[in-house]
Amino acid sequence: MKNVNNSKLKIIPLGGLEQIGMNITAFEFEDSIVVVDCGLSFPENDMLGIDLVIPDITYLKNNVEKVKGFVITHGHEDHIGALPYVLKELNVPVYATKLTIGLIENKLKEHNLMKSVKRKVVKHGQSINLGAFRIEFIKTNHSIADASALAIYSPAGIVIHTGDFKVDYTPVFGDAIDLQRFGEIGKKGVLALMCDSTNAERPGFTMSERTVGKTFDNIFAEHRNTRLIIATFASNVDRVQQIINSAYKFGRKVIVEGRSMVNVIGTASELGYLNVPENTLIEIDQMKNYPDEQLVLITTGSQGESMAALSRMAANMHRKVQIKPGDTVIFSSSAIPGNEKAISNVINELSMKGADVIFQDVHVSGHACQEEIKLIYSLVHPKYAIPVHGEYRHLKAQAGIAESLGIPKDNIFILTSGDVLELDNQSARVTGHVPTGAILVDGLGVGDVGNIVLRDRQHLAEDGIMIVVMTLERYSNQLLAGPDIVSRGFVYVRESESLMEEARRVVENALDNCMKKHITDWGKIKNTVKDDLSDFLWKRTKRSPMILPIIMEV
Amino acid sequence: MKNVNNSKLKIIPLGGLEQIGMNITAFEFEDSIVVVDCGLSFPENDMLGIDLVIPDITYLKNNVEKVKGFVITHGHEDHIGALPYVLKELNVPVYATKLTIGLIENKLKEHNLMKSVKRKVVKHGQSINLGAFRIEFIKTNHSIADASALAIYSPAGIVIHTGDFKVDYTPVFGDAIDLQRFGEIGKKGVLALMCDSTNAERPGFTMSERTVGKTFDNIFAEHRNTRLIIATFASNVDRVQQIINSAYKFGRKVIVEGRSMVNVIGTASELGYLNVPENTLIEIDQMKNYPDEQLVLITTGSQGESMAALSRMAANMHRKVQIKPGDTVIFSSSAIPGNEKAISNVINELSMKGADVIFQDVHVSGHACQEEIKLIYSLVHPKYAIPVHGEYRHLKAQAGIAESLGIPKDNIFILTSGDVLELDNQSARVTGHVPTGAILVDGLGVGDVGNIVLRDRQHLAEDGIMIVVMTLERYSNQLLAGPDIVSRGFVYVRESESLMEEARRVVENALDNCMKKHITDWGKIKNTVKDDLSDFLWKRTKRSPMILPIIMEV
Repeated sequence: MKNVNNSKLKIIPLGGLEQIGMNITAFEFEDSIVVVDCGLSFPENDMLGIDLVIPDITYLKNNVEKVKGFVITHGHEDHIGALPYVLKELNVPVYATKLTIGLIENKLKEHNLMKSVKRKVVKHGQSINLGAFRIEFIKTNHSIADASALAIYSPAGIVIHTGDFKVDYTPVFGDAIDLQRFGEIGKKGVLALMCDSTNAERPGFTMSERTVGKTFDNIFAEHRNTRLIIATFASNVDRVQQIINSAYKFGRKVIVEGRSMVNVIGTASELGYLNVPENTLIEIDQMKNYPDEQLVLITTGSQGESMAALSRMAANMHRKVQIKPGDTVIFSSSAIPGNEKAISNVINELSMKGADVIFQDVHVSGHACQEEIKLIYSLVHPKYAIPVHGEYRHLKAQAGIAESLGIPKDNIFILTSGDVLELDNQSARVTGHVPTGAILVDGLGVGDVGNIVLRDRQHLAEDGIMIVVMTLERYSNQLLAGPDIVSRGFVYVRESESLMEEARRVVENALDNCMKKHITDWGKIKNTVKDDLSDFLWKRTKRSPMILPIIMEV
Repeated sequence: MKNVNNSKLKIIPLGGLEQIGMNITAFEFEDSIVVVDCGLSFPENDMLGIDLVIPDITYLKNNVEKVKGFVITHGHEDHIGALPYVLKELNVPVYATKLTIGLIENKLKEHNLMKSVKRKVVKHGQSINLGAFRIEFIKTNHSIADASALAIYSPAGIVIHTGDFKVDYTPVFGDAIDLQRFGEIGKKGVLALMCDSTNAERPGFTMSERTVGKTFDNIFAEHRNTRLIIATFASNVDRVQQIINSAYKFGRKVIVEGRSMVNVIGTASELGYLNVPENTLIEIDQMKNYPDEQLVLITTGSQGESMAALSRMAANMHRKVQIKPGDTVIFSSSAIPGNEKAISNVINELSMKGADVIFQDVHVSGHACQEEIKLIYSLVHPKYAIPVHGEYRHLKAQAGIAESLGIPKDNIFILTSGDVLELDNQSARVTGHVPTGAILVDGLGVGDVGNIVLRDRQHLAEDGIMIVVMTLERYSNQLLAGPDIVSRGFVYVRESESLMEEARRVVENALDNCMKKHITDWGKIKNTVKDDLSDFLWKRTKRSPMILPIIMEV
């Protein structure tokens, strides 16, 4: 790998910075581009009605001949979720470890892309060649099995991208993170480290996943006489494994409930990432054949998601499971910021039905805390630090850590999505900016809901709508029918008849005034109606519904 | 106080249970009712466009001749916020301590009620007689000064209502909670204890407010060269006092910013609850005359409220304060559940502008933890326990504490708003239920937005609206104009012209079919249009906008 033209490496994050979600980063060297991850993000509160959000890949489409493939670090939604949408526009091969490919294939099947998309399983320790790049997959630990860091070898130097990781010396499945390899590559000289910032504000060291297994054992031991219901993240296969282990140890049958949980566990078992002793797993319909104290239910809904299995149980809307006094419900999770209230509502509903709810200390994070981040920096010893995977505060916290380890401030880059960082052993700087953005997915529509539609939804949500319909004669502009006023989401009309009647009169006056002033332009008539009605409603109610005058002509 | 007829005492919570907010409880004995607190709650996420929520007081209005007055425990919004609305419908006197009355008067002024509403300041240790009741105000500690517990003496026995409280042995202002008096009344025999449940899930003892003062001193000492901006709750006068103390000690001038902060501090200073050394407070316009290191700004916005001063500073939308690199911003608060994401957004924005943000451990709670709750139970030793002020999980946690202290399970009542608990020394049981509910306030409208309007807003927010207007001839039902389709919040119309054109054709076909089948009933025509269009849109977009067919006749 010689750098004949002394070209620089370009690192271009197209998402994932200043947010947790939608991770996607392009690495470009001369005529080669490889893309690391292709995730979605979940809609912000003000994205009303939106199902999910995917990255804008205009830059990749404009350079389609260069793009050699997607290299995926692990199978979480914020790293693979946008793939089916993006692959429809940019059909290139996908490379990842076995479980990750398995989870991606679940998505490709849903989107009918299994035939058209090439994919290749890579093992930890293996490398793939993609244009000017060689990419090595390095074993890490995370809250999903088969997570990888990537060593990205380019003629301009080596970049290590950690993916999402933690350091788990005693993982539940497979090996610990390959710290030796990080050290070995570090010794060769690493140009840049792109390290997970999620927990960069947290001091200390993230506990081993195995500690949660001990907690489960304690909980099972203390609750020998009740049914156990455990909610956790569907993708946390090791967590599920530990629940199964405890269940087996304490002689309980395991039921798995919730669509995503069933899917992930299916894939993980098939691929050998989950070890279920015979006769442990039973179907939900078999529950009735066992006494409560011989059952444990593993379910989705640990974030209070309204449609998830646990929430439906709590709301008495689950078809097969009723919560009853004596049930013990365990949240093996922590709240993702923004979900606190929904979770609390579910806890209240469960408590009201007599369940005993355990919601603290039955979880460990999948992300590295400060001491782990320091460990990786010390093994890799990069020239440049590029914190990734986090909101600005998290990126900044990691920048602080990097600086404390002796990396000069000028060599630390807190990038924004779209920044083009050009670097080699001599220098590194942001030389440009490419288009990026959030494409909103609503139902089948990808990108057909933008700011204007969202602003309208926000307006409608706040104050509702008032529609004013008038039929005018084509030439004379004389009022033939109406004005009729219809409102939705504004007031309860049956109890506000006089207000609506007054509103009608305001519109009539506005039309009269237009006639008197010989205003015939429909745009002007509409604006007059809108302004007068808006003023009237604001004075009377201090509200501003959307006002929509519609003129029909006959 | 003799119970001549052996009547029972009725305790009727009209709000405040299974929620944090909207506290209001009626105590009824024969022909006397006194009401403790009259608070508002803030709208839930699904209450789109709603400003605030107040309790339904139908029961009080139906018994208006019995109601002797409102007795208020302290000046927080969830205890006084509904008063101006309720007093318009039920004009009875209001009794509270000095600062509490001061804060209530601010509200009465806004609502032009100062002349019509009687109010009386009561001192701690004093009692007032209201019909069959005597109410004694007992000093407690809380995150607002002048908080009171109430001993409610009735012929059927004594009830102690703690209000919101903590045990602070070293309060910043005034005395510690009057534990002796709790003990003294307890010795006489207390029928029921209604105790604050907010922190009943938290083990231990809430730290003294004074510890935050030490934290401030440390922060001031460590940040001698930067401007300090401290966000906290407007009503926490003691917190503000401690910031002023540290500012004075370290030679900084204090600026107060944010409307509610200015109001509360104004009232607190006037009434002697805040001690500001001369020449410490300066106007915001004088800031420019001092170097950064001689300034500290106290501001609203600690919950990430979008319109509060700190959020406006963070978003670069504050007219007088710009955040700049080097500023130190301190959140002296913890997140109220549901506000985590908004707070995090503000922290990110502040960090991006170069501010150093401190957001942990500069706050203590105002509510009693488990050991304090045990202390109050042990002093009061009630026959019946009625946990109040909390979501179900909190009430249940306190019920567990009460049981652990030896109160029989049958004597512990987790009530629901509207329950009528009848009790005396012989027995206690829920004997009925009165109407309760949440009245939504939207602008000037009180109660004119109900479930139907909210459901419409939710629908509009999710998928927008599609309006179909047709002008028909009166007798023949012949289409004279239209169908015209107008949509808002559905798709970006300019880029979806073919979809809209197809939709128009679907409507035309529906109308044709009606004509062919000689359907002339407008209701049926509208339904046909609605169903056909709805099916079409769902198939094409997997979305369900609200569809509103409007027929005009000429």
